[in-house]
Amino acid sequence: MTKVTEKILTKVISKRKSASHKGDYGRVLLIGGSENYGGAIIMATEGALKSGAGLVAVACHSINLNALHARDPEAMYIDWRSSDLAELVPKVDVIICGPGMGTNEFGKKILMMLCQKITSKQTLILDASALDLIATNHELIPQAAGLVILTPHQMEWQRVSQLRIPYQTDSANLSTLANLFPNKNGILVLKSNHTHIYNSNGNIYENTTGNPGMAVGGMGDTLAGVIGGFVAQFGSNIDSVLAAVYLHSLAGDIIAKRNYVVQPTKISALLPKLMKEFEEE
Amino acid sequence: MTKVTEKILTKVISKRKSASHKGDYGRVLLIGGSENYGGAIIMATEGALKSGAGLVAVACHSINLNALHARDPEAMYIDWRSSDLAELVPKVDVIICGPGMGTNEFGKKILMMLCQKITSKQTLILDASALDLIATNHELIPQAAGLVILTPHQMEWQRVSQLRIPYQTDSANLSTLANLFPNKNGILVLKSNHTHIYNSNGNIYENTTGNPGMAVGGMGDTLAGVIGGFVAQFGSNIDSVLAAVYLHSLAGDIIAKRNYVVQPTKISALLPKLMKEFEEE
Amino acid sequence: MTKVTEKILTKVISKRKSASHKGDYGRVLLIGGSENYGGAIIMATEGALKSGAGLVAVACHSINLNALHARDPEAMYIDWRSSDLAELVPKVDVIICGPGMGTNEFGKKILMMLCQKITSKQTLILDASALDLIATNHELIPQAAGLVILTPHQMEWQRVSQLRIPYQTDSANLSTLANLFPNKNGILVLKSNHTHIYNSNGNIYENTTGNPGMAVGGMGDTLAGVIGGFVAQFGSNIDSVLAAVYLHSLAGDIIAKRNYVVQPTKISALLPKLMKEFEEE
Amino acid sequence: MTKVTEKILTKVISKRKSASHKGDYGRVLLIGGSENYGGAIIMATEGALKSGAGLVAVACHSINLNALHARDPEAMYIDWRSSDLAELVPKVDVIICGPGMGTNEFGKKILMMLCQKITSKQTLILDASALDLIATNHELIPQAAGLVILTPHQMEWQRVSQLRIPYQTDSANLSTLANLFPNKNGILVLKSNHTHIYNSNGNIYENTTGNPGMAVGGMGDTLAGVIGGFVAQFGSNIDSVLAAVYLHSLAGDIIAKRNYVVQPTKISALLPKLMKEFEEE
Repeated sequence: MTKVTEKILTKVISKRKSASHKGDYGRVLLIGGSENYGGAIIMATEGALKSGAGLVAVACHSINLNALHARDPEAMYIDWRSSDLAELVPKVDVIICGPGMGTNEFGKKILMMLCQKITSKQTLILDASALDLIATNHELIPQAAGLVILTPHQMEWQRVSQLRIPYQTDSANLSTLANLFPNKNGILVLKSNHTHIYNSNGNIYENTTGNPGMAVGGMGDTLAGVIGGFVAQFGSNIDSVLAAVYLHSLAGDIIAKRNYVVQPTKISALLPKLMKEFEEE
Repeated sequence: MTKVTEKILTKVISKRKSASHKGDYGRVLLIGGSENYGGAIIMATEGALKSGAGLVAVACHSINLNALHARDPEAMYIDWRSSDLAELVPKVDVIICGPGMGTNEFGKKILMMLCQKITSKQTLILDASALDLIATNHELIPQAAGLVILTPHQMEWQRVSQLRIPYQTDSANLSTLANLFPNKNGILVLKSNHTHIYNSNGNIYENTTGNPGMAVGGMGDTLAGVIGGFVAQFGSNIDSVLAAVYLHSLAGDIIAKRNYVVQPTKISALLPKLMKEFEEE
Repeated sequence: MTKVTEKILTKVISKRKSASHKGDYGRVLLIGGSENYGGAIIMATEGALKSGAGLVAVACHSINLNALHARDPEAMYIDWRSSDLAELVPKVDVIICGPGMGTNEFGKKILMMLCQKITSKQTLILDASALDLIATNHELIPQAAGLVILTPHQMEWQRVSQLRIPYQTDSANLSTLANLFPNKNGILVLKSNHTHIYNSNGNIYENTTGNPGMAVGGMGDTLAGVIGGFVAQFGSNIDSVLAAVYLHSLAGDIIAKRNYVVQPTKISALLPKLMKEFEEE
Repeated sequence: MTKVTEKILTKVISKRKSASHKGDYGRVLLIGGSENYGGAIIMATEGALKSGAGLVAVACHSINLNALHARDPEAMYIDWRSSDLAELVPKVDVIICGPGMGTNEFGKKILMMLCQKITSKQTLILDASALDLIATNHELIPQAAGLVILTPHQMEWQRVSQLRIPYQTDSANLSTLANLFPNKNGILVLKSNHTHIYNSNGNIYENTTGNPGMAVGGMGDTLAGVIGGFVAQFGSNIDSVLAAVYLHSLAGDIIAKRNYVVQPTKISALLPKLMKEFEEE
């Protein structure tokens, strides 16, 4: 097991090249935000935007449009019931599916659409509701993606893996990951107070940042967005994931020095400044 | 009578344990926010969120959804006309009922639903419209709750207790509280420029913070939210209530040093920093 | 003519008494905000809220509800097409009518309703659209109000008074005011780069603050709100009006020291701090 | 070719005269913001407002109204499907058409309406969707405008000019501009990491500010708004355009010193302070 340290940030956060444009920093599509859980997709969106994704589109229930744009005019919007969604999927680099999506039939149809549309050039992050849906039926995992990143907390992982929390050992987790992803295109980010990250090569990483002030709703949604933003900019690989996980909790640690609780949206707001400090020269 | 001092903060605001998750910090459900008074439930929500409740859900009129999420994406939403509301009630730890709810037949039905659903494992805070409703009919008090906290200002308490303001003496208030709560599961937070707090054991406390710059609409809604957040995290007992009342007005005092009036939302915004200063080691 | 100086602030901004509550600081009702001009009533609302009015209600087109509460949850809302509006009028202390109201038949009906409902215990501020409406028909002025404050800029005053701008001399303005308000219950705030204020006693005042960075849309809406907030708290008299006019432009001057343009919402945001500095001891 | 330097700011940003009013700083109408791209028109609006335009109106899809006013109450709103839009056009000084407008039949009709209504007293800025529409049919360019400013990035310019990016040389761009604007009333702002500006007199300018942290969605929308604000205040000429382009990227450079990515809305927020520093005395 490898401990993730600050070094991952300078390794991953590359200095932007002068002759570059927004397309070079990736197109991220977020899918989620039902009538009840619009806040979740907004928080994930802010994670992607403020970590620097080039273009961010949000497919959600139409009821959430004004809250989204009141906070984040930088995000494009698409009604998740529109047929435009299936058309947009092939045009993006990273898809984050799940925050506030809900686990009903409609969410299932979205995963089935992704199973049909997604290609090996794309990275897929499955979070929250999407995890609960694949827990009921592993066939709903879009295996054709170049990389699938699962971001469950321990209870969600229990539902996906059928491993009860005390049995979520590194070896059990690794072998479950291997079973879930026969093409070796999976990464598991198992969130806890010591988040472990596993990839299909059998590597295990432990995050070393984070604090209990972060134990509030929306923290995971934000992390999914940050991972998406990092993969979009810095490549679809384990290092981008490790750096995103580390940075998200490092921001939380900085905020927690002066705050009893850490609001997820404050983490996102801190990212541009924090990333600058670790920019590789 | 006991004066509430700063000591209550260090006593109550416990340091969070490393191996904890958002469920450990309580699930709070707020019910209120009619078509006209959406702002009240938003301000109560911010009190609960920023004092650190683990999970916060808001049941309100659907018209308020976008304003809620534009300010507070951390809150989950539920249409208060949905049958999901009655299903959600048993799953939460704390219920705040009343801010901006309105006193019409619909509000009455919500209290009747709570009378049916609430259990002794749950804490209920009745504020604003909910107080006016129980004033018309004491049968609307959900007596089965483990603890019921009433948060009237003096005029609301007059309507509930039938005690005109000059007659709201400590002994009259205590005996009214005893009559209202034969099971001794009641706390009365009687808001004034010297807020008094009474519990069913006959104890009386006087808050020592607060200032007239706080005499603006929304201050009470915010306090209801902070009490909810404290009970959710620090236990359903008189100390949590005392600490919430003290902290809310302490925040107001700090803001009033440099501001002629104190906006309720600024009190909530100050809580994470202020709670950190009093965190018990 | 009297020059308005800083002294008016310490004279008017009284220290709040400890044993006071929000009702002591006045109930303000704002009427305006059509489908097209929702921003105007929001800016007026912020002027009233942040200058310290005890309770603020906004009657506007329902389409503006979420923007209002996303910015200002402290304000109560009422659909201006609801019959509740006419019922609310007698319960408030100050009415601000006009910002973004529009000059169509509906606006006219609102003024006619005010003509019927308003009493001598109430102060009425007519701004923007309301001025254009009374310009077409002076019978639309609700003469029964205890005090009517008109807040036109020079072009609006031309339409009300039939005085073209070069003819808007102090004497012409005073005599027009006398004609408009035979009961001597009128105040005219004639906005320009040197705003003049006239009352029915024949007094003339000139404001000495203000700068051209304030020449942007929304500045007048904000001023109407601040005047409303001051009258609600400090009494319905010329001094409250003078202090509000002076303070609004003083805030603009402070902002303009470091900003090329002055956003109206930044003026409102500065008021709590600025009022504290001039609080009478 | 002339390099644009800081001198353009002090040359253009004139000190406001004391005896001036909001009408002196121009009326700007923005047209854009479809159901999917409301954020784009909001960002353009903030560019116009915070650079100091006197009056700003936004014609967009009605679904975007609340997000617009939640952020920017200073802007007036008009439903872009209303017949009022065509009536408003002759009353404004500057029209910004395109941000988030969409390229469907409806957007085409808007351009056709502008072709009919616009006059030589008005300045027109065509951005984003409007550029893609004129790319399909050059007849859609409203030639009667006093000045037409095109603000394409290189890919948009390829579609308008039929010049593939490697062939977008200064001479090719100039001759294409001459062909597009036989009346010599065109300016081309060709956005890249070294933005070039061309006018119909054959002058070529190169901007010297900007950085790759600005390579995110919404940056161009913001620039269109700032150009509109500058033309509205400082005159419809090449210097206003150069100053707006320079200032927009200068703000980006200042933000990038401490931030890995530059949010477009933070650029707009910085403008009032930054313009003050370069105000001509």
